[in-house]
Amino acid sequence: MSYVRHLQCTTCGAVVEYGHAALTCPSCGSEGILDVVYDYEAIAHRIGCDTGRDMGRDCFAATGENSMWRYMPFLPVDPVWERPPLRVGWTPLYNARRLARALGARSVFVKDEGVNPTASLKDRASAIAAVRAKAAGRRIVACASTGNAASSLAGCAASMGLRSCIFVPRRAPRGKLMQLLIYGATVVSVDGSYHEAFSLSAAAIERWGWYNRNAAINPYLVEGKKTVSFEICEQLGWQVPDWVVVSVGDGCTIAGVYKGFHDFYHTGLITRIPRILGVQAAGCQPLVEAFRSGERFRPSPENTIADSIAVGVPRNPTKALNAVRRSGGDMIAVPDEEILRAMRLLGSTTGVFSEPAGAASLAGLAAAFESGIIGREETVVVIATGNGLKDIANAERAAPSPIEVGPSIEDLRQMLEARAKDLLTQGE
Amino acid sequence: MSYVRHLQCTTCGAVVEYGHAALTCPSCGSEGILDVVYDYEAIAHRIGCDTGRDMGRDCFAATGENSMWRYMPFLPVDPVWERPPLRVGWTPLYNARRLARALGARSVFVKDEGVNPTASLKDRASAIAAVRAKAAGRRIVACASTGNAASSLAGCAASMGLRSCIFVPRRAPRGKLMQLLIYGATVVSVDGSYHEAFSLSAAAIERWGWYNRNAAINPYLVEGKKTVSFEICEQLGWQVPDWVVVSVGDGCTIAGVYKGFHDFYHTGLITRIPRILGVQAAGCQPLVEAFRSGERFRPSPENTIADSIAVGVPRNPTKALNAVRRSGGDMIAVPDEEILRAMRLLGSTTGVFSEPAGAASLAGLAAAFESGIIGREETVVVIATGNGLKDIANAERAAPSPIEVGPSIEDLRQMLEARAKDLLTQGE
Repeated sequence: MSYVRHLQCTTCGAVVEYGHAALTCPSCGSEGILDVVYDYEAIAHRIGCDTGRDMGRDCFAATGENSMWRYMPFLPVDPVWERPPLRVGWTPLYNARRLARALGARSVFVKDEGVNPTASLKDRASAIAAVRAKAAGRRIVACASTGNAASSLAGCAASMGLRSCIFVPRRAPRGKLMQLLIYGATVVSVDGSYHEAFSLSAAAIERWGWYNRNAAINPYLVEGKKTVSFEICEQLGWQVPDWVVVSVGDGCTIAGVYKGFHDFYHTGLITRIPRILGVQAAGCQPLVEAFRSGERFRPSPENTIADSIAVGVPRNPTKALNAVRRSGGDMIAVPDEEILRAMRLLGSTTGVFSEPAGAASLAGLAAAFESGIIGREETVVVIATGNGLKDIANAERAAPSPIEVGPSIEDLRQMLEARAKDLLTQGE
Repeated sequence: MSYVRHLQCTTCGAVVEYGHAALTCPSCGSEGILDVVYDYEAIAHRIGCDTGRDMGRDCFAATGENSMWRYMPFLPVDPVWERPPLRVGWTPLYNARRLARALGARSVFVKDEGVNPTASLKDRASAIAAVRAKAAGRRIVACASTGNAASSLAGCAASMGLRSCIFVPRRAPRGKLMQLLIYGATVVSVDGSYHEAFSLSAAAIERWGWYNRNAAINPYLVEGKKTVSFEICEQLGWQVPDWVVVSVGDGCTIAGVYKGFHDFYHTGLITRIPRILGVQAAGCQPLVEAFRSGERFRPSPENTIADSIAVGVPRNPTKALNAVRRSGGDMIAVPDEEILRAMRLLGSTTGVFSEPAGAASLAGLAAAFESGIIGREETVVVIATGNGLKDIANAERAAPSPIEVGPSIEDLRQMLEARAKDLLTQGE
């Protein structure tokens, strides 16, 4: 059984029965994105929260699942359904002391989502999609994606014997495309923007009856993403941080981040919700502008190297803005140069190699410290959403060049003298 | 404290005191690679093996460490020494049912080392190097590497505030180089072969007194790698597989795989050692030839796409060949086309995207089934040593091409009809 009580439209508020065939609101149509509402009282009873908080908090570790499935009572999944064998979630949260020092801050943690099976946070959502597709007897899953959602869906599908059909805009980085193809997905490369790839996928999904993993349409995917917040709570020993920082494209990931804290709060597992800082790239910041103006977002060009968040027409603006506002958070935009600088800073102080969209979170944090949005004494968790190996071309823009030498020690000595003199004197 | 009893030379058998400054045998010189010998009786007592096997076996999970550090009594590391915060090891072992079916086999497991922090098995060795360097008060660590050892060292060093200097041959794939640079390593790109990069690193390490992470010289690195075998035992519920398959370059990884089973066997945790199949690329198979001929290896050209195992002059031939022989195993070479095919097969049946050297293991398994070296009813573990995202250029050679369309549903229908007809009829 699952603890879902019903679905509720984020636009008109209509209550929709769990199990209803359509993924969006029957009243509003495709604009009416649904929210999954749980019976929090029943969950609290089930996990033992109502008999003393500590027991509830310990129940997740007691499952023995080193993955997102340790949170089963909070997921729209029946425990008897088949799950992908891939180990999704329970990614490490690092106490980044050297990074904090570099930022002049007291306490900065980094959640490394790049070690998920297909190397991004999106695996959490795709795992839910694959489980629900299989449970519904579907054999083909589909989505449009700038990359990470796609590779995660293709990987999860492959691990469960499902076929996948993925729509990508032609500018998707090669690394992400290769993953899809190696996972055996049928990849449709659309000569157009992400928006056009999305529309074509929607038409095809409707026409051929595939399972729809488009995150802004399918209400269950945010439910997978929210497990990142569950883990943050557990891994911090239930000390809720002051801020969580995450980059924003379509708006689904930040919605998931909020939903996780929301669910734990309403079950009584935590006593407050952290403030959420949403970060977009300066060259594509429709939601930052909408947040500041209080008006509906305006479509934006997609001028940023951070392809995972280069979304000019975000599909989930309501959930995203709600997440920021309800958490008492804020939004900020950062230029590409700062994103590249953040990639180096993150890598050299923590050993975490993040894709640009992941490093954008850190660039946003640095800017938020500068502008006083976040105080340097506050505790902050930065979510590194994907692995830097996914986008080598941009890593190359961020990285210094190697020292080139012939195979001669004298040659080497001269080059080190010029470029890394400290290496010649700091052996011990 | 640690349970290391002494070191022993793999060439002349000399016993060397633990704590001796030189990394190789004082009698034989740099050719004398040392082996770390533990006091197995003391370990058995410490972990409770001698009071009943089950207690000993449960002690690892009881540490609560979801990483290689759960095996502390078996490591050349004092528990009080500082460790890298990165979460190394305890990678997933997948029961690959669809892959087994595709191979006509009964039971094939895949150990996905690509989800380590820097995306390869080498993190296990570099973590040990970083710990020992820091404990010895060193501030600079160095190595020569075709890629994975280097990026893992750079990542582990960054996470502990150590400087790293990495020597790479110029042909190293870009993905691996970018990782190093983002981690803040000083990268010396040597205009020459891996052999020449290695020699230059050795000269520089000696001259400037850096900590040496070259795996064939430093006896402690195999000790990190062996934890992959510890995990295989635990994750299979202590049912030792019939075979473990791993690709071979320098010979250090296969030596580590053997050492893990050896250590558990001699502590009484397992009752037999699995046979080990070592796989090299057909274009660079000096150790396969040495194994077959029974003679010392002859230097080989490095003609393979699998750059992590493109090692014409392997530095650890003795340990590697001992691993195969003492386990009752075998060696096999596979052509590059089979490696590329194995990448697709692995990805599409399991959702694991492996670099060519990792997929070489699977290609070797397929060949070993064909030739009867391994029976299809035997239980096999294939080690996927590194993430496919590290080498996108070769993934592209392995992958089919995407379907290119304009943003029109009719266009799409025609293309699917031609290239993926099953998608049009299998919606439910």
